[in-house]
Amino acid sequence: MAYNLLKGKKGIVFGALNEQSIAWKVAERVHEEGAEIVLTNAPIALRMGTINTLAEKTGAKVISADATSLEDLENLFKETMEILGGKVDFVLHSIGMSPNVRKGLDYDALNYGYYHKTLDISAFSLHKVLSTARKMDAINEWGSVVALSYVAAQRTFAGYNDMADAKAILESIARSFGYMYGRSKHIRINTVSQSPTQTTAGSGVSGFDKLEDFSDRMSPLGNATADECADYCITLFSDLTRKVTMQNLFHDGGFSSMGMSYRAIEQYEKSFKDCP
Amino acid sequence: MAYNLLKGKKGIVFGALNEQSIAWKVAERVHEEGAEIVLTNAPIALRMGTINTLAEKTGAKVISADATSLEDLENLFKETMEILGGKVDFVLHSIGMSPNVRKGLDYDALNYGYYHKTLDISAFSLHKVLSTARKMDAINEWGSVVALSYVAAQRTFAGYNDMADAKAILESIARSFGYMYGRSKHIRINTVSQSPTQTTAGSGVSGFDKLEDFSDRMSPLGNATADECADYCITLFSDLTRKVTMQNLFHDGGFSSMGMSYRAIEQYEKSFKDCP
Amino acid sequence: MAYNLLKGKKGIVFGALNEQSIAWKVAERVHEEGAEIVLTNAPIALRMGTINTLAEKTGAKVISADATSLEDLENLFKETMEILGGKVDFVLHSIGMSPNVRKGLDYDALNYGYYHKTLDISAFSLHKVLSTARKMDAINEWGSVVALSYVAAQRTFAGYNDMADAKAILESIARSFGYMYGRSKHIRINTVSQSPTQTTAGSGVSGFDKLEDFSDRMSPLGNATADECADYCITLFSDLTRKVTMQNLFHDGGFSSMGMSYRAIEQYEKSFKDCP
Amino acid sequence: MAYNLLKGKKGIVFGALNEQSIAWKVAERVHEEGAEIVLTNAPIALRMGTINTLAEKTGAKVISADATSLEDLENLFKETMEILGGKVDFVLHSIGMSPNVRKGLDYDALNYGYYHKTLDISAFSLHKVLSTARKMDAINEWGSVVALSYVAAQRTFAGYNDMADAKAILESIARSFGYMYGRSKHIRINTVSQSPTQTTAGSGVSGFDKLEDFSDRMSPLGNATADECADYCITLFSDLTRKVTMQNLFHDGGFSSMGMSYRAIEQYEKSFKDCP
Repeated sequence: MAYNLLKGKKGIVFGALNEQSIAWKVAERVHEEGAEIVLTNAPIALRMGTINTLAEKTGAKVISADATSLEDLENLFKETMEILGGKVDFVLHSIGMSPNVRKGLDYDALNYGYYHKTLDISAFSLHKVLSTARKMDAINEWGSVVALSYVAAQRTFAGYNDMADAKAILESIARSFGYMYGRSKHIRINTVSQSPTQTTAGSGVSGFDKLEDFSDRMSPLGNATADECADYCITLFSDLTRKVTMQNLFHDGGFSSMGMSYRAIEQYEKSFKDCP
Repeated sequence: MAYNLLKGKKGIVFGALNEQSIAWKVAERVHEEGAEIVLTNAPIALRMGTINTLAEKTGAKVISADATSLEDLENLFKETMEILGGKVDFVLHSIGMSPNVRKGLDYDALNYGYYHKTLDISAFSLHKVLSTARKMDAINEWGSVVALSYVAAQRTFAGYNDMADAKAILESIARSFGYMYGRSKHIRINTVSQSPTQTTAGSGVSGFDKLEDFSDRMSPLGNATADECADYCITLFSDLTRKVTMQNLFHDGGFSSMGMSYRAIEQYEKSFKDCP
Repeated sequence: MAYNLLKGKKGIVFGALNEQSIAWKVAERVHEEGAEIVLTNAPIALRMGTINTLAEKTGAKVISADATSLEDLENLFKETMEILGGKVDFVLHSIGMSPNVRKGLDYDALNYGYYHKTLDISAFSLHKVLSTARKMDAINEWGSVVALSYVAAQRTFAGYNDMADAKAILESIARSFGYMYGRSKHIRINTVSQSPTQTTAGSGVSGFDKLEDFSDRMSPLGNATADECADYCITLFSDLTRKVTMQNLFHDGGFSSMGMSYRAIEQYEKSFKDCP
Repeated sequence: MAYNLLKGKKGIVFGALNEQSIAWKVAERVHEEGAEIVLTNAPIALRMGTINTLAEKTGAKVISADATSLEDLENLFKETMEILGGKVDFVLHSIGMSPNVRKGLDYDALNYGYYHKTLDISAFSLHKVLSTARKMDAINEWGSVVALSYVAAQRTFAGYNDMADAKAILESIARSFGYMYGRSKHIRINTVSQSPTQTTAGSGVSGFDKLEDFSDRMSPLGNATADECADYCITLFSDLTRKVTMQNLFHDGGFSSMGMSYRAIEQYEKSFKDCP
């Protein structure tokens, strides 16, 4: 169901790889709500994924950009403004990757070059997007920026590794830049802290399935899906949430406010049962 | 501008006194978005305020109910379901009052009878609304309940007195009941922590003007108005936020994430200037 | 091992029932550290428990006081100052009880008379202790007050019921009164959020054992014991923590900062194993 | 006054520059409490400061180490264990520096090379200290690590710039590594979030004086001094706080829990007064 919530708005969506991607769902939904968008991802992701299908579906152009490269980002905003005929109103940042996780290095034995890279890709990229946009004055007044995060920014999850630190600094950047960009241009910047989601990125974390199950049983409403996350992002890009900024917003079926649910402890209890 | 976000939805709005009230603005906006509502307030508030104007404007019936009375609430839900022809989809709780504040009693010299009354009116009323609805099965699956709160639940504000404790327990009730009602009926319960707002209730707090000024200078986007709060509530009642529950959501122009802004410290600095 | 950390200090310890009680351990430890104390508890708790053993061990007088009665509290402080020869330096508040939990009433079907009673006993009692002390000027400058709390104040635990709300408002009272008492008398007020502990009160909660096991596996250092809690309280009563106030301090082996540990998820995974 | 709280313990203190330094005060206090320590700082800091005075006073050796260099850190732990005759029991991390702040670059126009450097010095250094210690098994079971932080990790302060992000990730590292080191060796890792302090580092931030004044008026107990911070660290290194880990502990006279104090708003109000 569509409401024309974003009619006349323009935006950039970072990070749609394939149809499991949250960014993919967001692109579909913003299109349904009347927005015109540009899709972007890193060259390698464009090759690996199926973004052209999405581009067709949403009538969007795809611009290749490495979000750690200021040059690429400058080109992205320049081309986007040409294609869309003006500044953008919203940006989705859905970017994260840890070479340490990929290489299976434990958190207490990180490679520091990789660590910097994790942050560069997963967090500084948000800063670079924003500072490029700021320099080029590429976001309209009262525009809205959303970056995707995870509760590991607040609480430690075994195996989430240096991505936890990346999400913590990502949320800090959203606050710090939210102040700068808010006071000068009334642009709001928030992070959405999403349930564990079966995306290519998410399901790569070891033990993902068990964690997803536990998370689902802990959450009174169950885990939030990628589609539901897209719905939520729509509200944050709309004009109805203009005074929400510098916040980390949990979209997780209640997980973040749970200590222990009956459903989860009941399952847990089964683990102690002896076989007959 | 309206989007039909709440088309076909039914709701109850507690706490509209006069056109300064946040609840008033919410009633207007949910009506614009296609919802049918019932308005309710305590008998004395109905007499003091101008709710009939709002009722006409929104085509709503007004039902008198003391939100601390289980009998009144039961009657309210019964009549509401008759009038609207079924269960409700959303509830706004905008109720708060402290006899200790009214009587000018300092926080370290509270009257404990009044203290219980502050909680009964400002916090337990939410519990009673929810448990009555639960018993009568009066809220549809995936319904949404919002209660208004203030950042004093987390940080102490001189003069806010026992209302701080009331807001803290209000937010706790939203979590506790959010778990119960979420797991059984998928109903979500959240609090919106709003900027200081020039309502009859808000502006009664001593020193309100200076605090409002400070809050505005601290917030990169400025204080959020009652109208903007109504817009935000619309999103929380819509189907786009179904997996957000048990959260306290700051709607405050960024205030809650600020330690010190340039605008506020600049003003503060002036206080040290000597007259020539 | 003792350090004379509290040499010359005087205090009141609320809530020692038997040797499982955290308050019991605190009484022993403050005595070891050189403090003189008065023990107090409600008349019924004095009869049920074994406090006289503790009184002998710590050379302390026992004064009966219902912590919900201003009259009893006034008498308590009066007698305490006579016995100890002056104002006190610290107070431990370890009081909590929910008639709703005792009667097995679910959170969505609370008895509201009991609900007020839960708060009166578990939270307002702290306010009453403080306002009585304030009125009688019974705590020395730079004194320290600690109340025991639980993480259910922030996150919902199935079965913890209205005690969650009680702990939320207890922590709010610590902040609100911490401001009042801090600015006037430099007295600090904090809550210690302790691991689930095998006390008479704690183990009464249904499903306590499984929760304790889960909590222990989640916490990198394991659950904190009552003895360890007593050690921690010693530091908070000492002169070494004078500028810590209005805080909720987690003493829980790391539980509050964990999302998922390897030990806990490993156990959880066993619950899905089929018997051969 | 000394209590022998750290008798027989060994430790390393990073970051003592001159007698304004918090680390300096900590070194003095741990020595008074019976600990044997090694002092360390970067080569340039050793030249600029007066650490030899401290070394004499505390009977400590000084070892030069750049905390961003794994080689230097390995040498530091090796030499320390030789000098002190065994593993250490505690570590103080008091290290922070932002080239962006030094060069006066605004947050929305950061130099990214500097940004990485800010994190490398102010946050990754903690990770490197810990992973070096872990690899060399250089910290005793139940050891304690404290890193100094600031509330800018949670709330934005104009001018604090990328140090806010550095503190956010520092606190995340404390949690992430606290889990790893806790489960394997029972070592606890916490951050202390200290009031603005008149150190060489602190007072370099522009507008520091006004912020310090505001912070002092907001805090019911006033700002915490470097001496008081040292006292607090003593408790965290002692055996009395063994189950406190992965926490960010505010040591700030109550600032972090304040929204507005009477003293601060009263001063603020003066700024609006016209001269006669």
